[in-house]
Amino acid sequence: MTTEVAQAGVAESGVAAETIRAGYEAFKARGLKLNLTRGKPAPAQLDLSAELLALPGAADYMAEGVTDIRNYGGLQGLAEARRLFAGLMGAPAEQVIVANNASLALMHDTVVYALLKGTCDSEKPWSQQGEIAFLCPVPGYDRHFRICEDYGIRMIPVAMNADGPDMDEVERLAAGDASIRGIWCVPKYSNPTGAVYSDAVVERLAGMKTAAADFRIYWDNAYAVHHLTEEKVEIANILEACARQGHANRAYVFASTSKITLAGSGLALFASSKDNVKWLTARMTPRTIGPDKVNQLRHVRFLKDEAGITALMERQRALIAPKFEKVLEIFDEKLSDVAGVSWTRPKGGYFISLDVPPGCAKRVIELAKAAGVELTPAGATHPLGKDPEDRTIRIAPSFPELEEVALAAEGVAVCVKLTVEEKGQQRVSG
Amino acid sequence: MTTEVAQAGVAESGVAAETIRAGYEAFKARGLKLNLTRGKPAPAQLDLSAELLALPGAADYMAEGVTDIRNYGGLQGLAEARRLFAGLMGAPAEQVIVANNASLALMHDTVVYALLKGTCDSEKPWSQQGEIAFLCPVPGYDRHFRICEDYGIRMIPVAMNADGPDMDEVERLAAGDASIRGIWCVPKYSNPTGAVYSDAVVERLAGMKTAAADFRIYWDNAYAVHHLTEEKVEIANILEACARQGHANRAYVFASTSKITLAGSGLALFASSKDNVKWLTARMTPRTIGPDKVNQLRHVRFLKDEAGITALMERQRALIAPKFEKVLEIFDEKLSDVAGVSWTRPKGGYFISLDVPPGCAKRVIELAKAAGVELTPAGATHPLGKDPEDRTIRIAPSFPELEEVALAAEGVAVCVKLTVEEKGQQRVSG
Repeated sequence: MTTEVAQAGVAESGVAAETIRAGYEAFKARGLKLNLTRGKPAPAQLDLSAELLALPGAADYMAEGVTDIRNYGGLQGLAEARRLFAGLMGAPAEQVIVANNASLALMHDTVVYALLKGTCDSEKPWSQQGEIAFLCPVPGYDRHFRICEDYGIRMIPVAMNADGPDMDEVERLAAGDASIRGIWCVPKYSNPTGAVYSDAVVERLAGMKTAAADFRIYWDNAYAVHHLTEEKVEIANILEACARQGHANRAYVFASTSKITLAGSGLALFASSKDNVKWLTARMTPRTIGPDKVNQLRHVRFLKDEAGITALMERQRALIAPKFEKVLEIFDEKLSDVAGVSWTRPKGGYFISLDVPPGCAKRVIELAKAAGVELTPAGATHPLGKDPEDRTIRIAPSFPELEEVALAAEGVAVCVKLTVEEKGQQRVSG
Repeated sequence: MTTEVAQAGVAESGVAAETIRAGYEAFKARGLKLNLTRGKPAPAQLDLSAELLALPGAADYMAEGVTDIRNYGGLQGLAEARRLFAGLMGAPAEQVIVANNASLALMHDTVVYALLKGTCDSEKPWSQQGEIAFLCPVPGYDRHFRICEDYGIRMIPVAMNADGPDMDEVERLAAGDASIRGIWCVPKYSNPTGAVYSDAVVERLAGMKTAAADFRIYWDNAYAVHHLTEEKVEIANILEACARQGHANRAYVFASTSKITLAGSGLALFASSKDNVKWLTARMTPRTIGPDKVNQLRHVRFLKDEAGITALMERQRALIAPKFEKVLEIFDEKLSDVAGVSWTRPKGGYFISLDVPPGCAKRVIELAKAAGVELTPAGATHPLGKDPEDRTIRIAPSFPELEEVALAAEGVAVCVKLTVEEKGQQRVSG
């Protein structure tokens, strides 16, 4: 390009840049205050479980007609609660543990127990074996990475594809390095891309050679029944696959009712092999006499059965899907012609992952914040909060009202365009 | 004693022994099935909190009018819950943490965090500092000892007196051995002796020199408001004493509503210095987004204020005190004349500690079990489950009905007499 032509281009784009900047300033001037940082259910979603707040009722406290749920005990959780979630967990009720709110706590605790005591297949506690590492498909869930960071577990990023992590890389790493003891997986409607693990990926994870005999798959099936479309995507059963492949103890399956019933007062769920369940209940024994069984009976009375869960999730979808559709509609309209920008179209879960050109994510989030739209911090989807390419932005449209989601998406689109424009200017003048 | 006289004594005691054995066989023949193993509230006690099972009610979910308790967040617990328990915890609400059920879990977790990360005063994680030891006043609470056992923390028994642990010994050990990082204390109505720490003991614990800069008092005030008599025993404020003595971070205070409201679905409470609260909330951050706030609001609505707690505990006392009185009445009647046998007369808490002659506790518990009365396993009140003198038996009269408690106490008395008689025979013939 000759200098003249380049200057003409700059002049033209100068006009476009002016329009874009004016659009941003106009948006900023509205003085909005919108928050798309976290996958929080909206109040209307929580209203769907209002009944829970008055259950089980003053005279209802006998589980299976024999256990007084008000008293101590029942470490593994109520039998009827374990049965209720057996299908969702893909394991027989005897291999399900129902615990207090927050499956994150169960994930944390299984890491801590492995560090201090070792898994049921460990020769020694992990903390006595030098460096420990986990494979981290990226982009991924910040709170998984935070557990590793907190306990000094080295995180090895592997690329996340549309059908799960890059399995060639996962197999290569797991087979070659005995310090690698685990992998974080959100197998269905992944956080944040919405990716769904294919049957082939599940089978390879279950069957692959690992240098460490006590390698564990942290299978965080957080969005097992959290569909956004008519299609109810199903994934292969990791526990069955692992057992079939001769690695029965490889996978820990986690889930919760946090985004089924009430986000702050749901039930956390764990399922695994008999040995792992025996190990975890033994590890939990010094910690607690038992979980809050009243909350378990409350959930059993409210959800009733799998059909009850399905019906509730349909009502959740009716509230949340339009917000996702609105974001996608606005991105389609405003960002389709912006080079280097793309986004996911999840069939479930709580997030849309927006990819911007390298080096742009932080600036987009900064501009959005200045204009009153708070997004998840740049880098949150990567280990140590560092996105090496600075290009992944997680959009969480569930919490605000639909009109606010629309406004926020428009704001994000404006910020993306302005950032890309700024970068273009820098390239030309630089 | 001449041989003749000794033989006459044996003959006489032979008659007594026959009577005692006949009494035991008669008791056994009744085929009772009574359980005095654990400090479980009776169903009638749980009935006092029946309202909780229907609270907060379907339309009540805003705390302080601003926090939607159904959603994520609020790591430290609801402000109104922290205020409600501030008095009981002896700390301002800002220094109280309200967590999910089971204060045992908080105790466990503070140990685990110290092991993996260190306290806020530790140079390194405890797990990287060689041997770690805790002082264990004995007899004490088996679940405290279990945490130490599980994580390889050496337990050093110190004698428990009527006014708290033997402080000469505690001071000597803590000052001389930097591996000693903590002490387990149940300061009021101690488990199992009912002992109450004197102001002098509290002051000495707060002020003593410790070789370890990060020494911690695990102050399990489990029975803070659990009075058995008209007298409401008060103890000195350990947090204030520690602060006054220049060791503000020394004490972790624990309590729970497990024996105030519902044993299995209460709230766990923690209070300490600002630094320790900051440390613990930072440690909790990777584990959970927040506790079950619905259960917290439920408790706030039900208990209302300190007067509400006091009134409920009066009703608890009306149910539980007669059971303690019955046990003491039967022991007074049946065991007063048995040499080497004594028992505590607690003014609160959940246990009576029965001391039998050395070498007799296991046999008493064995005989009782064979006669249908299950007692806490011998040795449970000592580290590693080993009572070196085999003489402490923990009696937990709260759970069975009053008539059953009476029967069980009579059974225990018969077993004690038979064991003592057997031992006497062994001594003579041996």
